[in-house]
Amino acid sequence: MKRTMFFKNKPTIIGVSSVAGPKESSGSINEYIETKLDDDMYGEKTFEKAESRMLFTAIKNSIINAGKEEKDVDALICGDLLNQIIASTFAARNFNIGYLGVYNACATFTEALTIGAAMVDGGYMNNVVCATSSHFSSAERQYRYPLELGCTRPPQSQWTVTGAGSSVISKSGDGPKIVCATVGRVIDYGVTDTNNMGAAMAAGAADTLLNHFKEINSNPDEYDLIVTGDLGTLGSRILKDLVWEKGYDIEKQHVDCGELIYSICEDEYQGGSGAGCSSVVFNSYLYSKLKNKEYKRIILMATGALLSSVSAQQGESIPGIAHAVVVES
Amino acid sequence: MKRTMFFKNKPTIIGVSSVAGPKESSGSINEYIETKLDDDMYGEKTFEKAESRMLFTAIKNSIINAGKEEKDVDALICGDLLNQIIASTFAARNFNIGYLGVYNACATFTEALTIGAAMVDGGYMNNVVCATSSHFSSAERQYRYPLELGCTRPPQSQWTVTGAGSSVISKSGDGPKIVCATVGRVIDYGVTDTNNMGAAMAAGAADTLLNHFKEINSNPDEYDLIVTGDLGTLGSRILKDLVWEKGYDIEKQHVDCGELIYSICEDEYQGGSGAGCSSVVFNSYLYSKLKNKEYKRIILMATGALLSSVSAQQGESIPGIAHAVVVES
Repeated sequence: MKRTMFFKNKPTIIGVSSVAGPKESSGSINEYIETKLDDDMYGEKTFEKAESRMLFTAIKNSIINAGKEEKDVDALICGDLLNQIIASTFAARNFNIGYLGVYNACATFTEALTIGAAMVDGGYMNNVVCATSSHFSSAERQYRYPLELGCTRPPQSQWTVTGAGSSVISKSGDGPKIVCATVGRVIDYGVTDTNNMGAAMAAGAADTLLNHFKEINSNPDEYDLIVTGDLGTLGSRILKDLVWEKGYDIEKQHVDCGELIYSICEDEYQGGSGAGCSSVVFNSYLYSKLKNKEYKRIILMATGALLSSVSAQQGESIPGIAHAVVVES
Repeated sequence: MKRTMFFKNKPTIIGVSSVAGPKESSGSINEYIETKLDDDMYGEKTFEKAESRMLFTAIKNSIINAGKEEKDVDALICGDLLNQIIASTFAARNFNIGYLGVYNACATFTEALTIGAAMVDGGYMNNVVCATSSHFSSAERQYRYPLELGCTRPPQSQWTVTGAGSSVISKSGDGPKIVCATVGRVIDYGVTDTNNMGAAMAAGAADTLLNHFKEINSNPDEYDLIVTGDLGTLGSRILKDLVWEKGYDIEKQHVDCGELIYSICEDEYQGGSGAGCSSVVFNSYLYSKLKNKEYKRIILMATGALLSSVSAQQGESIPGIAHAVVVES
């Protein structure tokens, strides 16, 4: 079993776009976000439709920013947290482009980049769009409680990011390049608290990161940043402990998109989460820093908690997964 | 935009496995099904857990049938109809193998084959498993009504297949080969009847099939069979009409997995459906006929209706999608 794949032709991320809700647009990376919403309904009647529209906007603008047209794109590789990934489906309905739906919870964005990079690198497609979204209000009422109940949030909880991000991967052009990817396994640490996603995902993240270092014989010092998706404060600490036990110290390089996206204040507790979290941060702040060569080589590792409300109600624990891609400027 | 990709190294399906419930195991392809269940609970406490166990069994047996071990497999590419594809997640938890979750409703199986074939053909992976499942009782209570209500089924409805199928794609070995694949678009015909999946999917199927014929300059006579996933009787008729209008007559070659899987009797009405439908039929009956060269070249085109109970309740119509793969003996 090999889990790391190399892309010899270094598929290039030639354009990106990000859309974010009002809360995310006033956080610490706000100046990098392309489309900032005043209203998280985005002119739609439901949160689900608003999420789908955010994803549509991110996809459309990323194609424009890449200097391409719809007809140049061979496939949309998209996913989100809604049941049957309807935000993606209904966004894809508006394009005359092939569609591959993917789902690995909040790890979906790097799953999409992995598949997209392979499709382009292997010569099967010329340009693909990889995009994901999430919405606080659609996620909250699907996974937890109706918002109207006003439930108290426990201190280990995270805040689902309202946002969408999209990358256009191309066989040629200027921009950061995807060098390799490590596919994650489903790792179950036995966490059953549906409010504690960080702990549930940390073991999957550690597994992927350790495999990555071993398989390509590298170490944390070879990267400017090791970026996790949405482990949050607690999950990040667990990840750092787990890899430290195996002889890797990532304290210096590690940042978490969930910690980056909000200004530190009280009500997100552990930080952001959601399939839109890593994709908003990558397709705004991180892409910009890679593009102007402030960062030369980063690992982007989105992390997912693979539960549903049914699996939780049926007493299942929450397995985690993480897919890592290495992006060079 | 090109939607058809060719696999030069012709990735080979070296082993398959199928698991089916009692009803499916007594249908017209029953002798080809590997694991026939007496009880659709499969020894588990819930339908969802039973579905996940079916998928696990199909994956495990397909690896054995391929003459491989778990350590030889680079990735599981799986999906199912349950919210957050939990049947796939919890099946994948039992393997020490990378996992890519995919979702295109009942078109998921050929989506997985398309991605899997590209991964193997491009040299990124040596062996991948592509598998999907569905379960009548878990689908019915998730998408429609509690079974206990005993709702009357309208004549245009289909019966979700209780079953799972799994294929092992390898860069070398004996078996039928995947020659090319055509990625589907999301096509919306405006159907809003959640009991009429066949009509909702037919336009997506026609779009993919017509694109396939045009892009590779072929015609129906070049195939022994043109197999759709689960259009059922009505949806199949619509598909045949739609492609006939464009100058292609597929009457002679067309069969539908949903029509094949059950013996003709009253209560399935239009035939079978579900992400397990095409994968059970392909990984039993069709694979066997390809293996012994009764069929030389077929199109397998699984078809998906991209709705969720939320999108239907919010007044959305039901878009369809279909991905086609060409398999040669």
